[in-house]
Amino acid sequence: MFDSHFQTYEEAADPSLGAPRLKMLRARLKAMKLDGFLIPRADAHQNEYVAPCEERLAWLTGFTGSAGFAIVLADKAAMFVDGRYTIQAREQVDAKAFALVPLGETPPSEWLAKNAKKGARIGYDPWLHTNGQIARFETAAKKAEARLVAVEENPLDLLWEDRPTPPRGRVVLHPQKHAGEAAAKKLKRVAEMLSADALLVSDPHALAWAFNLRGGDVAHTPIALGYALIPRRGKPRLFLDPEKLNSRTANALGKLAHLSPPDFLPDALKELGAKKQKVLFDAGTAPERLARLFTEAGGQAEIGNDPIALMKARKNAAELAGARAAHLRDGVAMARFLCWFDKTAPRGRLTEIAAAQALETFRRESGELRDISFPTISAAGSHAALPHYRVTEKSNARIGKGVYLVDSGAQYPDGTTDVTRTLAVGRASKAASRANTLVLKGHIAIARAIFPEGTSGAQIDAFARRPLWEAGLDFDHGTGHGVGSYLSVHEGPQRISKLGGAALEPGMILSNEPGYYREGAFGIRIENLVAVEKRNIAGAEREMLGFETLTLVPIDLRLVEPKLLTNEEKAWLNAYHARVRAALSPFLDPAERAWLKKATKRIS
Amino acid sequence: MFDSHFQTYEEAADPSLGAPRLKMLRARLKAMKLDGFLIPRADAHQNEYVAPCEERLAWLTGFTGSAGFAIVLADKAAMFVDGRYTIQAREQVDAKAFALVPLGETPPSEWLAKNAKKGARIGYDPWLHTNGQIARFETAAKKAEARLVAVEENPLDLLWEDRPTPPRGRVVLHPQKHAGEAAAKKLKRVAEMLSADALLVSDPHALAWAFNLRGGDVAHTPIALGYALIPRRGKPRLFLDPEKLNSRTANALGKLAHLSPPDFLPDALKELGAKKQKVLFDAGTAPERLARLFTEAGGQAEIGNDPIALMKARKNAAELAGARAAHLRDGVAMARFLCWFDKTAPRGRLTEIAAAQALETFRRESGELRDISFPTISAAGSHAALPHYRVTEKSNARIGKGVYLVDSGAQYPDGTTDVTRTLAVGRASKAASRANTLVLKGHIAIARAIFPEGTSGAQIDAFARRPLWEAGLDFDHGTGHGVGSYLSVHEGPQRISKLGGAALEPGMILSNEPGYYREGAFGIRIENLVAVEKRNIAGAEREMLGFETLTLVPIDLRLVEPKLLTNEEKAWLNAYHARVRAALSPFLDPAERAWLKKATKRIS
Repeated sequence: MFDSHFQTYEEAADPSLGAPRLKMLRARLKAMKLDGFLIPRADAHQNEYVAPCEERLAWLTGFTGSAGFAIVLADKAAMFVDGRYTIQAREQVDAKAFALVPLGETPPSEWLAKNAKKGARIGYDPWLHTNGQIARFETAAKKAEARLVAVEENPLDLLWEDRPTPPRGRVVLHPQKHAGEAAAKKLKRVAEMLSADALLVSDPHALAWAFNLRGGDVAHTPIALGYALIPRRGKPRLFLDPEKLNSRTANALGKLAHLSPPDFLPDALKELGAKKQKVLFDAGTAPERLARLFTEAGGQAEIGNDPIALMKARKNAAELAGARAAHLRDGVAMARFLCWFDKTAPRGRLTEIAAAQALETFRRESGELRDISFPTISAAGSHAALPHYRVTEKSNARIGKGVYLVDSGAQYPDGTTDVTRTLAVGRASKAASRANTLVLKGHIAIARAIFPEGTSGAQIDAFARRPLWEAGLDFDHGTGHGVGSYLSVHEGPQRISKLGGAALEPGMILSNEPGYYREGAFGIRIENLVAVEKRNIAGAEREMLGFETLTLVPIDLRLVEPKLLTNEEKAWLNAYHARVRAALSPFLDPAERAWLKKATKRIS
Repeated sequence: MFDSHFQTYEEAADPSLGAPRLKMLRARLKAMKLDGFLIPRADAHQNEYVAPCEERLAWLTGFTGSAGFAIVLADKAAMFVDGRYTIQAREQVDAKAFALVPLGETPPSEWLAKNAKKGARIGYDPWLHTNGQIARFETAAKKAEARLVAVEENPLDLLWEDRPTPPRGRVVLHPQKHAGEAAAKKLKRVAEMLSADALLVSDPHALAWAFNLRGGDVAHTPIALGYALIPRRGKPRLFLDPEKLNSRTANALGKLAHLSPPDFLPDALKELGAKKQKVLFDAGTAPERLARLFTEAGGQAEIGNDPIALMKARKNAAELAGARAAHLRDGVAMARFLCWFDKTAPRGRLTEIAAAQALETFRRESGELRDISFPTISAAGSHAALPHYRVTEKSNARIGKGVYLVDSGAQYPDGTTDVTRTLAVGRASKAASRANTLVLKGHIAIARAIFPEGTSGAQIDAFARRPLWEAGLDFDHGTGHGVGSYLSVHEGPQRISKLGGAALEPGMILSNEPGYYREGAFGIRIENLVAVEKRNIAGAEREMLGFETLTLVPIDLRLVEPKLLTNEEKAWLNAYHARVRAALSPFLDPAERAWLKKATKRIS
């Protein structure tokens, strides 16, 4: 029925493989004269989505979540996951082989300090950890009088039969009309900002931005795995697998940089090191391996922040125009989906997977869908109470009466979207409507926020929580994350969270997604993307900023209690719905248009 | 006319002495084979208020502000002050002798890195700096290829004729009825929290709390300068000048600790060092001298946070009862002052100093005033636009038509107060009334805030700013600071500010003081003290907290525009004023009572 490709729903885990693979690994470690090994869920760029060949943690333990860590010692092994993944890890991992340890209570380094034996040699793959991560483990190892040993070859790769080959997604140029600035100009701006002799670009998102390229190496994010060296003076070097480039792309990139395969990077860094140069390594993504070989060659490594992150976060006019176009297209798909859902769901036979597939199909019908921007969270009833629920064939529930939560997004060539709506199926309970209205009040507080230049996301995060707090409620995630421009749906440094120290600057795109989760019962989240913009206020004494809401999708009025809203909040909601209606109607068929009119009706 | 002792108004500075004293110091440094010297505004406990004998920075430079730093090199000297003190420093310091450097732009360590000559020996008095401060200067000196040299004797003390002797304020016991917990019990609790072998208590406020003692060594804060060593097991040692103790006090303290003069502390630390013990030094207050001699003796110094700070910040029931009694007493004095002010100020002959003196007198008439808790900010017209204005004989202005701001507080045996009111003299301008109403909205937002356990002051700070932000306005200070219990009016770790990372916990006392400052025109601030308390909310799913407002003083309704307030805000203001009226009326004479009735009338 539906044309859906980008999401799979199988339960990939098989806990029974954990014990034998662990045994093999221990034998291998012994042969390597190692007493333990660190297994992060990471690739050599600290990506959120990694290529199949990098799923070492899943291969060894069975755990397929997007964040986790394992430590294997000769006599014990531990698997670390955070609160979101406790239940999943319990199902996927053989608890006899791996002790499940809550990441929040006992960080892996602390566990190592307590469990490593005196004199133990703990191996790690220096490509898969940053300098900071290894420094923490070094301190921990020292406490246990053990020591860390970087290995040349990852023992898991030697054991892993049928390990997939590294991805070779085609690299394409990101056109000027969407990028808004020529790569040559961006590279010049980067070079001018450097105080070091060169910057090592290790974050593929930064690479994509700086060179106006996009790739296809991992799911859901159009990045190409690779590196670049951008010197303060001279031509950059771009390290990309030549197999990913056709001649036109290679020609275009060759004008910007000397092209080499990634294998050439270590020698290039050694050369700079031998010249006693100073190179800036990105603390969050650069592999320890590279910083170390550079230092050992005589170079001066500065571990800091890649300045591209902030440049990339501030979208230019073309990127913002692209975001608006992408959100209009996405709004049309979402409205069509919501109309279809309202007709279909009450019959009681719709499943979470079918709904997610339908949504992907409506997006695909735009003709512009490149990928979904993350696996859709399609959650009925109590599943919605899990903020990171991921539906599988096994968990796949029928969508019954109550609330249904759908959190999804798309990658279009002009922009990345991310939207959550909570929908009533049948008559919603009073508790759900009240909670939804409180969440909506928080959402509107962010949408309407005005704040001076220099204000961080941490300072305004509680605006979204205040209505919930007044009712004795809260939610346990940040209010918003940064979003890229046809790049990652999660980008920094901007965020709206108590941890969000970066100043919000014009052009930054963020999500606005307060929620509420009642365990075992229901979950609520209302998410729009917003762009920071300058605001002119009569009599203002400071440069003031606010948010332009980009997402154009009705908010379910059946879950709104108007009497809990202030006049200002009602005015915002009515104006938003009027805007959604005006924007989407021209692209809908008559039945959908009628549905939209009702879904966006004025409340008082 | 008025009986006022605790504040002086003379302009103590004489810029002309800077140059000759600088010359003397340079000669002395040369004799000591030093090429420079660091002069902080600090004593050996990093106190906010220091004894006269510690005012080395003022003696050398003329600058009498509460925060500043000087560096003297052979060929140049710099005086560092922050934004609050730029104007004052310009008036008090000979700019030919000392280059004035904005602290925010160039920290002293950075200036040293740029200006110290290669090979230079930069002296410092290790009693007047913490380890962290010296570590920063060490790094800076290294950059300049200079080195830091700790001196045994401070060269300024050798030059300073008529240097006051160290203070010997009488130590008194803080009675159980106000402390609410026996010192023996507190000391046991502290010992139980230690993972180190002992804690060095270097913050006299922590000392006062732990031993239930109060002193008289510095202005405005009833502390006794001294130290203590609290071992994890065994009897503490208390290092206090015996001249400060009468026999009864000495007997009582002798039951809690072995008493020694402060001179004995270095040897006591060396003994622990020789035993290879681990001692916790407070990063914010312990002198580098002590941590170093301990380490050199073989000890293991842990530089961390004195756990007493947090224990002291959580006031117990007796301390909260004391705070309420102190605020009732203070509210009576403030109401009498405000009534008198309303009668007197419109005649146009009242000065800022006379008003401050009158206020102190009304407080003194309570019979319980031990000190004012800081120099009163008595600011007419544009002076009020300087948040830290301190009136002197020279600046003393007549209070004319417009707004007058008075920020003051008292030390009573049962509690410390701090209150700011902004008052209309004659008819207030529209701009002032509007700004005052916006500030009041922010004040009420904090007073009414509900938040879950674990919330930091940083998370709610913007509640106080939101109404101003919506008008394009803001203020450049935190919303609130912690307040002690008959101790410092500024205490940590609790604060309401974007920098306030500590969780707000039941019993903590803070100020709630948003403001607005229009340079050259007027200033607004509305300050009450509040105590964090648990809140029971029907249906709450988390432990929720809120604030009990302690301060009982009318807020000037002549500066409030009711149409800018929501119904909830009006309800808060009316309820607050009803509470103030009911609480204070019994203690006022008929004329004052009539004034109060009018000042607290219901608005709609």
